[in-house]
Amino acid sequence: MWIQKEIQLKSFSRGFHLITRDIVQQLPELKQIRIGMMNVFIKHTSASLTINENADPSVRHDFESYFNRSVPENESYYRHVDEGSDDMPAHLKSSILGSTLNIPITNGQLNMGIWQGIYLCEHRNYGGSRRLVVTINGEG
Amino acid sequence: MWIQKEIQLKSFSRGFHLITRDIVQQLPELKQIRIGMMNVFIKHTSASLTINENADPSVRHDFESYFNRSVPENESYYRHVDEGSDDMPAHLKSSILGSTLNIPITNGQLNMGIWQGIYLCEHRNYGGSRRLVVTINGEG
Amino acid sequence: MWIQKEIQLKSFSRGFHLITRDIVQQLPELKQIRIGMMNVFIKHTSASLTINENADPSVRHDFESYFNRSVPENESYYRHVDEGSDDMPAHLKSSILGSTLNIPITNGQLNMGIWQGIYLCEHRNYGGSRRLVVTINGEG
Repeated sequence: MWIQKEIQLKSFSRGFHLITRDIVQQLPELKQIRIGMMNVFIKHTSASLTINENADPSVRHDFESYFNRSVPENESYYRHVDEGSDDMPAHLKSSILGSTLNIPITNGQLNMGIWQGIYLCEHRNYGGSRRLVVTINGEG
Repeated sequence: MWIQKEIQLKSFSRGFHLITRDIVQQLPELKQIRIGMMNVFIKHTSASLTINENADPSVRHDFESYFNRSVPENESYYRHVDEGSDDMPAHLKSSILGSTLNIPITNGQLNMGIWQGIYLCEHRNYGGSRRLVVTINGEG
Repeated sequence: MWIQKEIQLKSFSRGFHLITRDIVQQLPELKQIRIGMMNVFIKHTSASLTINENADPSVRHDFESYFNRSVPENESYYRHVDEGSDDMPAHLKSSILGSTLNIPITNGQLNMGIWQGIYLCEHRNYGGSRRLVVTINGEG
């Protein structure tokens, strides 16, 4: 069984945001899968996806602080600067964190740990609405 | 053909550890797959999975040294500090390295390069026993 | 439907290189898939794969500059040094960027954003020809 949907997220501010519910709510078909796999793919190069702690918002805050330090803006050696000082760092952060996630499905649910959630990582100041492709494959 | 198992690893010390054998030994079903895919997913946010060099232990040692420098403890700007100085860096390392791996299966075996192995990346001082979900899908 | 191929790339210089076309050209079977998933796996521990901007070569140039700074050669604490000063950093970069990519397939094509391309990330000075395993799974 294959199911595939494109999901348009609302615009998020720069930073890290929990989107597990935004994804799962649009996928009632998940319940029909006994064993399977969900892939979430983000169709952009300046936003990314990761899995991390879903409870304490200070974790997401510290992610933004850390990545702004480890991938600084306005480095003198950057050549790709025409689209703003947040653009080249956004591309780098996107590849460090990744564009594609695979999460196992067990008995109709995502089989993540209880503290895990899916983060949208918005690396631009004004990234706008981001588009995901969600693909589910499994047996009922 | 779908096969899915949860694997409880033994407790590992903080650092990087080869676990290819721990996974494959629990999956005799691999031999039945001619073409397929194995997903390994770690159900935690302070340990992670990666693929790297399987021969020289000094590589794993240098991984630990490098990531401790690039993701330092006790940064003054961290807000998520209640669970110990190793906790917030563990979350960050986990997202940099990743929680989910897909490895191709060919003729009943993982089709990795001869120098490749699966690392458990334990980012906590006392992370305890970690839980994986391994999902195999393929044709016989 | 499962399709799997090993692709031997030409030797690339150290740096970041667009290889979307090199992969797709060898996969005419893609056209038969209505919904599916493509996995690209690199069988090496000193080169990696990522998805990023496919238009402006200065992005790839800045990737090389950034990662050379964030993962330096000749760190005094490295122990794995026998294979050259570019070797240990290559292993680290490979795990930060990753060895395995999943990309959705929709109506016979990779369903990436229009600005996305697949990068081969060559982290060695003389890495030679790299080998990929490409696995496609889907329904027609």
